Amino acid sequence: MSEIAIGIDIGGTNSRFGVVTDAGEVLKEDRFPTKDYPKAEKFVEALSGKIKKVLEEFEDYTFKGIGVGAPNGNYFSGTIEQAPNLAWQGIVPLVDLFKKYFDVPVILTNDANAAAIGEMMFGGAKNMKDFILITLGTGLGSGIVVNGDVVYGHDGFAGEMGHIFVYPASGRMCGCGRRGCLETYASAQGIKRTMFELMASETDESELREFSFSQMTSEHIYEAAKRGDTLAQKAFEITGEYLGKKLADAVAFTTPEAIFLYGGLSKSGDMILNPTRKYFDEHVLKVYRGKTSIIFSELKEKHGAILGAAALVWKRRK
Amino acid sequence: MSEIAIGIDIGGTNSRFGVVTDAGEVLKEDRFPTKDYPKAEKFVEALSGKIKKVLEEFEDYTFKGIGVGAPNGNYFSGTIEQAPNLAWQGIVPLVDLFKKYFDVPVILTNDANAAAIGEMMFGGAKNMKDFILITLGTGLGSGIVVNGDVVYGHDGFAGEMGHIFVYPASGRMCGCGRRGCLETYASAQGIKRTMFELMASETDESELREFSFSQMTSEHIYEAAKRGDTLAQKAFEITGEYLGKKLADAVAFTTPEAIFLYGGLSKSGDMILNPTRKYFDEHVLKVYRGKTSIIFSELKEKHGAILGAAALVWKRRK
Repeated sequence: MSEIAIGIDIGGTNSRFGVVTDAGEVLKEDRFPTKDYPKAEKFVEALSGKIKKVLEEFEDYTFKGIGVGAPNGNYFSGTIEQAPNLAWQGIVPLVDLFKKYFDVPVILTNDANAAAIGEMMFGGAKNMKDFILITLGTGLGSGIVVNGDVVYGHDGFAGEMGHIFVYPASGRMCGCGRRGCLETYASAQGIKRTMFELMASETDESELREFSFSQMTSEHIYEAAKRGDTLAQKAFEITGEYLGKKLADAVAFTTPEAIFLYGGLSKSGDMILNPTRKYFDEHVLKVYRGKTSIIFSELKEKHGAILGAAALVWKRRK
Repeated sequence: MSEIAIGIDIGGTNSRFGVVTDAGEVLKEDRFPTKDYPKAEKFVEALSGKIKKVLEEFEDYTFKGIGVGAPNGNYFSGTIEQAPNLAWQGIVPLVDLFKKYFDVPVILTNDANAAAIGEMMFGGAKNMKDFILITLGTGLGSGIVVNGDVVYGHDGFAGEMGHIFVYPASGRMCGCGRRGCLETYASAQGIKRTMFELMASETDESELREFSFSQMTSEHIYEAAKRGDTLAQKAFEITGEYLGKKLADAVAFTTPEAIFLYGGLSKSGDMILNPTRKYFDEHVLKVYRGKTSIIFSELKEKHGAILGAAALVWKRRK
């Protein structure tokens, strides 16, 4: 009998879940409105009901468990702790809440770790034991894999490369309360902030001068850059510079075989990849040169998070 | 029958080796002049002869193997590659050379990894699965332990925190050929360079103004600071600032339970520890605050490297 798991990707506005086989096939998927549930208890109750209904269609499969990727999800404690983008404040015992409705293993981790596990089981990292996955969304997340296992650290919160410093305690304000974090430079929000700096410092004409800060997205910058907007192109160059330099540092920690770029901003293709690689190559230590590839995730973004979350069920830490 | 291993610590001028029990007792140790042997083959031949002689005294023990810590020692390939401080250039197949003389496992890694393994088996990290050891010698080395294993990365050279950037491609020239690496700031050489900057920028009187760059050591700066020399004290403060800030970044990678300081500069005690802790606490991400201790190695420096190298024999990667 084939095995299936439920993969859940919890986001601030919407969550998504899917029925995934151990071969990485998404048999069914659906969305669920996170923001309609100010209480986590009610969210889990309603989502569990929906999942049970879906599972009725898959009675011919062995149901192995539920994997959940969520911002600030802690693998060890099964809790979501102080996630800035979720309405549920404090410490939410998410695994225990699901356990009320399901008698299978329920495993939680943060969204970037889940994506890394998805990449390892079903994507471009299938044959790799040491790699890093970077999510370039609104913020910057990271899943670090060493010797075939995700690095959780002693408290379950390891792998927060969004919060390594570009400029220690100076530079741009970050949602974490400090200044100068990498995600304030290399992310969808980060490139917008760079674009605004450029519109202030330079005098080049740019179609992006018609957008308010609230209106503008990284897609606008990408589209403008494709059309030849010199400031937008420069914003990508600078973003790749910030990212490439810090990825060079990352190699000195865990020396991955590859660094995968995943999520919204990575859809900009060569526009973000080329400068990232260029500054990475220029700054990486000689002994590492040519040994680490910077490449795009092979998981489709729509499925990646669900696949990764489901993969947690098969890839549990020993 | 008790087990013993030989631990060898290869340095540019001298090497040391010792007979170590599986309880971490150094039964005998000796030195051996590395610099007298411009060829690695001759070095290994002569050292092997000396070790065989020493082993005759320990025939009542089971001889389990040889562990070697060396600059740029590669765990996977058993080779020393392009070590700037050794006369042996290129790629030296050190493990194979020893295998000519011994029919036991011979394991090589870099000196900081060896010290980390020593700390894990015989020192303050006995009950830790996630920690980092920083060697503050002439340069800065690091051994990163995740989930109970040293991180080697995909090519065996992971854990080179001496070469993460304080200032990417700007700042002080480093032996690696780049500028701005952490070890040019936080190490025995680094604090001397800071002291020279301070003597240039400030007008405070200082006993250290009588020393040439070649004469001055970090011990001179430490002694002056103890006597109240304000510039020397400031040099320690600045060194701790550089180190503390970058250790805060390190926590975002692997979230260790503790960071151990080891080697020459760590003998300065609170003079280096206090500012390092202060800037670390000020800069670490909130979710990690209070969770990582910065402490001194519990291994005596004289024995640490030998113990760590010998421990390789018992702590082989699965």
